[in-house]
Amino acid sequence: MAKVRAALGISADGFGAGPEQSLNDPLGKRGRELHDWQFGTRTFQTMIGREGGSEGMDNDFCARSMRGFGAFIMGRNMFGPIRGDWPAEAWDGWWGPNPPYHAPVFVLTHHPRQTLVMEGGNSFRFVSGSIGDVLEQAKAAAGDLDVKIAGGMSTVRQYLRAGLIDELHFAISPMFLGRGESLLEGFDLPALGFSVTEKALTDTAMHVVLTKG
Amino acid sequence: MAKVRAALGISADGFGAGPEQSLNDPLGKRGRELHDWQFGTRTFQTMIGREGGSEGMDNDFCARSMRGFGAFIMGRNMFGPIRGDWPAEAWDGWWGPNPPYHAPVFVLTHHPRQTLVMEGGNSFRFVSGSIGDVLEQAKAAAGDLDVKIAGGMSTVRQYLRAGLIDELHFAISPMFLGRGESLLEGFDLPALGFSVTEKALTDTAMHVVLTKG
Repeated sequence: MAKVRAALGISADGFGAGPEQSLNDPLGKRGRELHDWQFGTRTFQTMIGREGGSEGMDNDFCARSMRGFGAFIMGRNMFGPIRGDWPAEAWDGWWGPNPPYHAPVFVLTHHPRQTLVMEGGNSFRFVSGSIGDVLEQAKAAAGDLDVKIAGGMSTVRQYLRAGLIDELHFAISPMFLGRGESLLEGFDLPALGFSVTEKALTDTAMHVVLTKG
Repeated sequence: MAKVRAALGISADGFGAGPEQSLNDPLGKRGRELHDWQFGTRTFQTMIGREGGSEGMDNDFCARSMRGFGAFIMGRNMFGPIRGDWPAEAWDGWWGPNPPYHAPVFVLTHHPRQTLVMEGGNSFRFVSGSIGDVLEQAKAAAGDLDVKIAGGMSTVRQYLRAGLIDELHFAISPMFLGRGESLLEGFDLPALGFSVTEKALTDTAMHVVLTKG
């Protein structure tokens, strides 16, 4: 049965993005380092059109975090730094003409905008319903495939709090951000029904998968 | 120059002990699992009088977390589960007749008690001064050796907040406790002047050392 999954790079102190998100720092200050574990992998290198890259557990987890999804859901802050109404020259994301999703991406926003169709099977649909309604739309679009709650932290926290996520993969990096977007603060994952079903420590990250139920 | 150090086993969600500490669960429910990484090491096995055990990074960190100290400081809750006045048949700790400290241990308490001298160079001194005063006493006792803020979490948090810790070693286990004694909540370690000076990922834990200044 199709699942709702999230995959998150977090710091050892639980932050999924650094402070002061901006055009130059879409993941906030030092937030990019949270993903160092995946940049060198074959999956990531292929995704950005390059040869080579590492095999192994980091690569496996990177592949799992991108594949098998028929739809994605993200918050507007993950789609871009623009707030309020969309300007005439529309922002079209951080990812260039062919984003890495290759499926419908539902962007949570209160500001209406026409669907943005891009290369590679990517389409960004701007939706203003409740998170539950949007999940139903995403599931319908995904068919037999999984739905990924792509981010940012606020969106993942909303879905987690609502009990709508089945599987969480954390890639925890050996760094401390001190402040930024906290994923874990206030959450008791065992009390929400999650238990650790997989773990793997590599040279660069501690991977933990939690599954509900 | 002698340093003030702390070494802490914490969960991936930042807890240094589980909930419901008791005589049977001195580290709270599931808290013992936070130390799985060290139980198999040669250093730990030697400490409990057994042969064998693993070499490698876990063993190195285990050794560093126990050696080089001329004095220890702990909260009363780490010394034992008794609250209020000391009963006539005095509790003498969790560790048997020869505790693993082999140096003076300063126990923070408002309840006076005579120094408890045990085998192997262990002495427990029950002190009611401010945490700063007690640290001065511990430094004087330690001479050229380091002082360890041994725990529990509340004691480490107090010393950390007061800016009195020079080095922190975290051994982070791939488990989620959900609740218990949080070490990190509310702390911005980079803002307190700490930066990561060492990191090592083993099969069982992610080790991160932070140094101040």
